Amino acid sequence: MIEGVKQQKWWGWGEEGLAYRYEDKPKFPGFVQKMVGVDITRPVKPIPPFSSLDVPASELSDELRAKFVDAIGEKYVQTDDETRVVHAYGKGVRDLIRIRKGDLGRVPDVVLYPGTQEEVEAIVDASVEADAVLIPFGGGSNIVAALEAQPGETRQVISVNLGRMSKVLEIDETSGLAHIQAGVFGPDMEDQLNARGWTMGHHPDSFVWSTLGGWIATRSSGMQSDKYGDIADIVRGLTMVMPGQVLQLRPLPSSSSGPSVREMVLGSEGRLGVITSAWVNVHRIPEVRELQAYFFPTYEDGLKACEQIVSSDASVMMARVSDPIETQYIMANGKKSGRVSSLANKAIQKIMLQKGWDLEKIAMSFIGFEGSANHVRYEKGLVGKIVKDNGGMGVGKGPGTLYDQKKYDTPYIRDFMLDRGLICDVSETTTPWKYAAEIHAKIVDRFAKAMDDLGVRGVVFCHLSHSYHSGACQYFTFAIADDSDNQEATYDAAKRVIQQSFMDFHGTVSHHHGVGEEHSPWMDQDISPAGVFIQRKLFEGVDPGRNLNPGKIIHDGEPGISSNSKDA
Amino acid sequence: MIEGVKQQKWWGWGEEGLAYRYEDKPKFPGFVQKMVGVDITRPVKPIPPFSSLDVPASELSDELRAKFVDAIGEKYVQTDDETRVVHAYGKGVRDLIRIRKGDLGRVPDVVLYPGTQEEVEAIVDASVEADAVLIPFGGGSNIVAALEAQPGETRQVISVNLGRMSKVLEIDETSGLAHIQAGVFGPDMEDQLNARGWTMGHHPDSFVWSTLGGWIATRSSGMQSDKYGDIADIVRGLTMVMPGQVLQLRPLPSSSSGPSVREMVLGSEGRLGVITSAWVNVHRIPEVRELQAYFFPTYEDGLKACEQIVSSDASVMMARVSDPIETQYIMANGKKSGRVSSLANKAIQKIMLQKGWDLEKIAMSFIGFEGSANHVRYEKGLVGKIVKDNGGMGVGKGPGTLYDQKKYDTPYIRDFMLDRGLICDVSETTTPWKYAAEIHAKIVDRFAKAMDDLGVRGVVFCHLSHSYHSGACQYFTFAIADDSDNQEATYDAAKRVIQQSFMDFHGTVSHHHGVGEEHSPWMDQDISPAGVFIQRKLFEGVDPGRNLNPGKIIHDGEPGISSNSKDA
Repeated sequence: MIEGVKQQKWWGWGEEGLAYRYEDKPKFPGFVQKMVGVDITRPVKPIPPFSSLDVPASELSDELRAKFVDAIGEKYVQTDDETRVVHAYGKGVRDLIRIRKGDLGRVPDVVLYPGTQEEVEAIVDASVEADAVLIPFGGGSNIVAALEAQPGETRQVISVNLGRMSKVLEIDETSGLAHIQAGVFGPDMEDQLNARGWTMGHHPDSFVWSTLGGWIATRSSGMQSDKYGDIADIVRGLTMVMPGQVLQLRPLPSSSSGPSVREMVLGSEGRLGVITSAWVNVHRIPEVRELQAYFFPTYEDGLKACEQIVSSDASVMMARVSDPIETQYIMANGKKSGRVSSLANKAIQKIMLQKGWDLEKIAMSFIGFEGSANHVRYEKGLVGKIVKDNGGMGVGKGPGTLYDQKKYDTPYIRDFMLDRGLICDVSETTTPWKYAAEIHAKIVDRFAKAMDDLGVRGVVFCHLSHSYHSGACQYFTFAIADDSDNQEATYDAAKRVIQQSFMDFHGTVSHHHGVGEEHSPWMDQDISPAGVFIQRKLFEGVDPGRNLNPGKIIHDGEPGISSNSKDA
Repeated sequence: MIEGVKQQKWWGWGEEGLAYRYEDKPKFPGFVQKMVGVDITRPVKPIPPFSSLDVPASELSDELRAKFVDAIGEKYVQTDDETRVVHAYGKGVRDLIRIRKGDLGRVPDVVLYPGTQEEVEAIVDASVEADAVLIPFGGGSNIVAALEAQPGETRQVISVNLGRMSKVLEIDETSGLAHIQAGVFGPDMEDQLNARGWTMGHHPDSFVWSTLGGWIATRSSGMQSDKYGDIADIVRGLTMVMPGQVLQLRPLPSSSSGPSVREMVLGSEGRLGVITSAWVNVHRIPEVRELQAYFFPTYEDGLKACEQIVSSDASVMMARVSDPIETQYIMANGKKSGRVSSLANKAIQKIMLQKGWDLEKIAMSFIGFEGSANHVRYEKGLVGKIVKDNGGMGVGKGPGTLYDQKKYDTPYIRDFMLDRGLICDVSETTTPWKYAAEIHAKIVDRFAKAMDDLGVRGVVFCHLSHSYHSGACQYFTFAIADDSDNQEATYDAAKRVIQQSFMDFHGTVSHHHGVGEEHSPWMDQDISPAGVFIQRKLFEGVDPGRNLNPGKIIHDGEPGISSNSKDA
């Protein structure tokens, strides 16, 4: 580990010592028991010690090591086993399953920590000259296999950790633009911006453990995208180191300079170069920020309300609606003294019953507002009317405050569940509004059938997470009870059903997690074979030697998760 | 000409018989006299008859003609001289100058009018198989030399006019999406949408004579982009015919499918294929639509107000501010009985003088609002306060109504001026807000100096046309008195000064006119040499035979307008 550069657990999400706890959530064990038949209060096996892993030796040549040491200093050229293992995978549950059973894949031969753009240039040039493979690494939170070398890669594999490049370099206060180094983690970046009265407003679930460069490389989107935009909207200029040259895109509000090179770097997942800094839109911290909670009699009513909000005069900062199972999950996750549970359990529940709602079908919603006090009042009025028109009701800002406090904790629950033989992960898609309810219903159906076929118990639930004029992102979470040696195949089968359903019911392969290796087999269905042809020509032209994170986005190595995708 | 496909004059803008008139604008001759010393009331030389042109014969081979006839029918394979000449150029003033003096460039050998996507596929495949050059043609309004074949092109040149493909195919009323054929002209498209209660809200100056496909191919932007977005925001999916394959991008609100292929097609100017249809965002026609007029004591005050509007709680449909010379131009263009002139001349002028304003420095502004009556009232209140904070004042909606009526008439004035020895054209850029006032001042200075150096009289004026969070587009119009044989060189010199100033003062090469051949020499300064490298690899990979509109965006033919760009 390098001082000042945060590093996740080798075996799980986030910070050593932090973990999900159920003890203060009295309803949670019962919820899990009911959904997938697992008793989470059972004692669990401890994680094996790191020393039990059989880590392949580094194959870094002395010659290349010497070049790296010369370029960035010996201290920042790390070949110890734990550092290399931490950089071998991202943090999808597939990664967690593999690493727990000692399947480490093609572990990188070295992890480099450059401190300047010039150092990145030296690393890139030396790596390509040596015909090595170069994989940029931000927070390591990727869940689509974008950070791992291809199986059987015979060349040297170099992981480039950008964590030392973490400064907000400049704020243009007139234009609302900030120039920021790519390796900065979310909280550090917001701290630096907030200290000067600014915010970027980009808050993905991975916020604590992801970086600006990673957001750009995967086309990330944050919870407040309805106001602040996706990362593709936020990033106005950037610098990317390529073999022998540096791409410099100045910050521009909009441009008509041919096919957008900016939009080619966004989502490029390391296949075009290493992003070292970006100019991003930043905003003054709003006077008022409010998350209001609402309930709808059904999920479909909630979807309808969000659809109407975007075509109305209202502007919101976020709008989120959970389906019935996720609503129950949120309730079950409430602390004993939490306002979510107490509100829901008493007054609210009584009103719902009076309205004739089926409590098994209710959908919880959070809608966020920002601006002056008067503006927030105005917008709440517009939204309140739409909620009412769709049969919903407001329950105030208590639950929203609670949601805001724990919004980054979700990933820790995957490790807790995996300890208990439960495979949990997420996948998201966008569709036009017309297909939003249908794709949700189809995925719930198909997933249930897949679980029957596999002979396991599993559950999938969902929330609408991001709204656009023409449609929305729906974010699916699934949990499967399987503590056999077959976990990886079970996960693959579940993921295949979900991804293929995205394709079959008007969705995209991903809204904001990217493609990596894991989603690549569906790309020809997503953007048509001609679209894949265009991306391939771009990658081949820029990187003819396949040194830049090969095999990602376009699947051209060994078949992966979805070699049978079309059978699903 | 083909029945049902609109065609512009061979020698000028728009419809035969329509022209700019000054007779009902009593102040206009005096304004022109004062600005550039030209008496526009002098009699003018008539345009020479078409028969005076020396049109090179078509070099279409019998074999290729037979294939085209077989694919789309004889009627739609046109090789007559006038049709070919109309398709030889766009409508920049450089094009008008050249065509008036009989310099026709490399006239296409045939103009094809396919009626279906399948017919486009057959044309593209036959053309590439014959190693011909293929240039897609929409309304023909391009002003950056994107429609002309490279000088000295020895291969057969095929112009593909999409005008028969002009239907709104489908409206998804739930999602606010419409599937529309690429060859539809603006008014025809809005008529079809309006008839069903919808609008796309995209209104570039060229609206009457440009097409959906052309907007996409050049990354167009319309006057109402502050609400409706640029075409890059509006287009959610599309179909593009490529050699041997068809790109199909389904309509998706947002996606994380690797480098955006959608954003590669946007602005591709025919270099990747022929766009045949698109899925676009459409909106319900708003209850209220209002253009309010305002005056500011200076242009800089107006810029400041627009900057503050985008970072405030307000949302507007458009915000436009003219610099002092353009303000005088607008006033001088008012009809005798027009409300602009009468208002400005009487009550308003009196108030301005009372406020101590310098009438030579005032800046006129139009700001547009849409939504419910209540919402428009609310937004006007927010904007009114910002206008007042910046020393401005509102003058009601009379002038805006007038502006709305004649907003598409501007291009006709270029022909009128050229008849009188005045070279007029436009160029636009975006910068961050920080540099908005400076780039305007620098261009006015440099342009004046360039006119002195050339020994001619000229004037440049400007308006802010599109606002974004981090900056704005400024749209420059220039007029130069030169009735010599040197007009082309004079234009090139003026254009070079403006484009190089864009580069020197933090602007982009173009905000919404595209690159074509004319702006290509500045691309390495705009997106850096590595950006041009990436675009080049994309084009080379997709079109190794250079059959698809070669030489556009990346300048790799003979040096054009700006061979001396860096000397400017």
